[in-house]
Amino acid sequence: MTPKAQESLDQLKKISREISILGTCGALLGWDERTHMPPGGAEFRAEQSGYLAGLTHKRLVDPRIGELLEALRADGLGNGNYSPEAAIVREIGRAYDRATKIPQSLVEEITKCASLGETAWAKARKQSDYSIFKPWLTKMIGLKKQEAEAVGYEDDPYDALLDDFEPGATVKAIEAAFTPLRVELVKLLDKIKNSQRKPDVGILDRRYPVDKQEDFGRLAAKAIGFDFERGRLDVTVHPFCTGIGPGDTRITTRYHETNFTGSFFGILHESGHGIYDQGLNRQEFGNPLGDAISLGIHESQSRMWENQVGRSRAFWEYFYPTAQKHFPEALGNVSLDAFYFAINDVRPSFIRTESDEATYNLHIMLRFEMERAIFSGDLTVDDVPAVWNEKFTSYFGITPSKDSDGCLQDVHWSAGLIGYFPTYTLGNLYSAQFFAQAKKDVGDMYAMFRRGEFAPLKKWLNDNIHHHGQRYRADELVQRVTGKPLSHEALLAYMTEKFGKLYSFA
Amino acid sequence: MTPKAQESLDQLKKISREISILGTCGALLGWDERTHMPPGGAEFRAEQSGYLAGLTHKRLVDPRIGELLEALRADGLGNGNYSPEAAIVREIGRAYDRATKIPQSLVEEITKCASLGETAWAKARKQSDYSIFKPWLTKMIGLKKQEAEAVGYEDDPYDALLDDFEPGATVKAIEAAFTPLRVELVKLLDKIKNSQRKPDVGILDRRYPVDKQEDFGRLAAKAIGFDFERGRLDVTVHPFCTGIGPGDTRITTRYHETNFTGSFFGILHESGHGIYDQGLNRQEFGNPLGDAISLGIHESQSRMWENQVGRSRAFWEYFYPTAQKHFPEALGNVSLDAFYFAINDVRPSFIRTESDEATYNLHIMLRFEMERAIFSGDLTVDDVPAVWNEKFTSYFGITPSKDSDGCLQDVHWSAGLIGYFPTYTLGNLYSAQFFAQAKKDVGDMYAMFRRGEFAPLKKWLNDNIHHHGQRYRADELVQRVTGKPLSHEALLAYMTEKFGKLYSFA
Repeated sequence: MTPKAQESLDQLKKISREISILGTCGALLGWDERTHMPPGGAEFRAEQSGYLAGLTHKRLVDPRIGELLEALRADGLGNGNYSPEAAIVREIGRAYDRATKIPQSLVEEITKCASLGETAWAKARKQSDYSIFKPWLTKMIGLKKQEAEAVGYEDDPYDALLDDFEPGATVKAIEAAFTPLRVELVKLLDKIKNSQRKPDVGILDRRYPVDKQEDFGRLAAKAIGFDFERGRLDVTVHPFCTGIGPGDTRITTRYHETNFTGSFFGILHESGHGIYDQGLNRQEFGNPLGDAISLGIHESQSRMWENQVGRSRAFWEYFYPTAQKHFPEALGNVSLDAFYFAINDVRPSFIRTESDEATYNLHIMLRFEMERAIFSGDLTVDDVPAVWNEKFTSYFGITPSKDSDGCLQDVHWSAGLIGYFPTYTLGNLYSAQFFAQAKKDVGDMYAMFRRGEFAPLKKWLNDNIHHHGQRYRADELVQRVTGKPLSHEALLAYMTEKFGKLYSFA
Repeated sequence: MTPKAQESLDQLKKISREISILGTCGALLGWDERTHMPPGGAEFRAEQSGYLAGLTHKRLVDPRIGELLEALRADGLGNGNYSPEAAIVREIGRAYDRATKIPQSLVEEITKCASLGETAWAKARKQSDYSIFKPWLTKMIGLKKQEAEAVGYEDDPYDALLDDFEPGATVKAIEAAFTPLRVELVKLLDKIKNSQRKPDVGILDRRYPVDKQEDFGRLAAKAIGFDFERGRLDVTVHPFCTGIGPGDTRITTRYHETNFTGSFFGILHESGHGIYDQGLNRQEFGNPLGDAISLGIHESQSRMWENQVGRSRAFWEYFYPTAQKHFPEALGNVSLDAFYFAINDVRPSFIRTESDEATYNLHIMLRFEMERAIFSGDLTVDDVPAVWNEKFTSYFGITPSKDSDGCLQDVHWSAGLIGYFPTYTLGNLYSAQFFAQAKKDVGDMYAMFRRGEFAPLKKWLNDNIHHHGQRYRADELVQRVTGKPLSHEALLAYMTEKFGKLYSFA
């Protein structure tokens, strides 16, 4: 790099770091709002967060960034250069281009529509009356189409929306993995449905004292590698993980006395996000090399610790005696196998957020297909409820009796989060593909879990994924780490093996 | 007001509100740092806070403020106008003038000297070796003299420093109250020393379970009027109160099992600050009419609830049965009178922060006199330890055996907080003068306390003090509310009566 390019890069990194600092201040406001803020603080908190978001946006579209990017691209750090420095230019450029291409008036219209639309959606869901939400969905789709046109795309306007959550992802690549996965999942589900073996899930609704749940959850989070010297666990209504800065990563959960799995697997899930955040390169904080790649890759980390690890038999061979000591009343007379089967119960259900590891992806793919169809014009907003129910019946074999159990259940569309859903299943696909590779690279991972050894997996994730930051896009990273492009195979193989054994059809 | 002036005022208020919002974001960072932040977050937290402080400063010295102030002063809102609008101009003007008069290079030098000086001070205190701290004190005095010259003053350069903490306060006015107070306090202390009556303070060091202390502290804070819907109580190392914004005021305390008074009176003290903050006019948040007047007035509120109320016999006639129920082991066999005497124990001690209600002010006045003498050149930095001990002996009748119990005990000078100490005793003076007036206005206040009625006093404080914000300077407010200028009389009368009864010399 020329000294001039180095100077431009340093300036760009400095602005990027300032934007990141503002972002972490906003993250603290958000964390506090959801965990500790007294009720009286709510009104002003909106003003604080809005003001910081405004400052951040102003910095994000600073024309100085555009000048520096142009200079750096001219200086050889643009397309075709695969150095770490070029990755910085690429990713800051992506955010800058996106932020400057969308007119401020459109941003404001979307924000307003989301705010009013969420209120309408909440009412619609409560009354299970799609007609209340329909005009807002129509309006939001129109606005998001404008956004896609403003941002630009190669093949499909939906790609422009995907890009906001999963940079570089395309409808084409996603469909190539989703379509065979759906076909096979429906078959798998059918086999599970026809199996004579069923777990006793009632054991999970027994009394699990909240203080013991918290103890046990912390113990497990610590064991898998969440660092409490550089993080916290708090209670909230809707669990999340947030980065307050390098060295400070916070996860949350919620406890219900008669629901052990909700809090426990929630903690493992958020710990997975947290371990990613804690594994980012601290020295690069404030520029793309120190930042997470995408929602999908983030989700791959949370789902790996929650499912591939946390719902494995090996994991519970190690933890179950401790669990029994924590919950003698609930689990004292329950065998490991009965418990392991119960936490891996698979059955069709209407609500995505309550669904199991196997059916979850069908919920997501249904939404992705509908978004695609609405966006391409193949589906009108009028027909959403009918098409939802039709698809649902064909995938799950059951039909929602009301729209609040169907197309009205999620907040996402009202909030303008179109193109977001696929990242959940992308996360599961990445997760399975990474885990299969880790098993090859690290050795007998399940034997390690049985001994309570989780550090080798964590180190593999640190080295192969976390430490790169945004050096590679998600699809490049998958190819690089696993030697294959994204596909449905690893996830399907994992599920077929696991549920085949549990439901005796392997 | 002309439409043009109104427009300028609105613009000024808008900028002021932005500065306040940034301030509250910084307050949340500070609160979190001291209550919840994991250890790993410390390094980056300094950067976050520093960045926000920089943004705030940039906004604070925005030349646009200067233009608006000039226009508003020209439009009749300057000196001689006593409207609320003029108070806004006056106080924003004070902050702007101060911030723009001090050269940035001097600000940076002071910050650097404070940072290095604090480290040196901590080492000096630990080793009780004044020579380690001396060069930094010398340097800091020099810098603060430059600051005073830059800010400007009428009579005394020390006034320019006072002004940062107690706007409008002067050496002259303070000495007029402090000097007779010191003389009389020394006499009072002598009488107490010679009294045959002594409380059994050992009862306060018995076992007070921490969870019960927290229960009882919350109960008392709520009873006197701290609103937990608009506030929180958390645990910290050095207790404080902070405003996160209108509707969100947070207090903190610390608990030790064998020290009941530390946490309990700490909670009352911080609740007093909190009740002031919660009593500010929410509609005026972000401009001086919605802000606290000064450190001294703030301290008057905390000290009133802590001492005038919380150490009164009437308060405990109401609360003592509850306290005995919370702490049966410690207080079950202790009479109300014995307890009341113990919490009002007066005896000379070396450490300011551990001293009682009566001797506390002597600690402060000693510091004020020394600061004055150093600043006027009457005292050299070399002579600080000797003069400290000499004065201490003459006021308290005991002599520190080492400088860590003497001139090295406080962090303030190392941090550049010169002119800060007097606000503590100003707070006690205001407090006594306000309370004496409230007793006249509200009726038989002690009878109300005996019935657990604290709302009338709180309302009187809301109406007479809190609601005005910075409409009046501290000295004007005292004159306005009590009909008299600041004096030592009310505080002395209160102490003479109270301790006269307790120590039987009245």
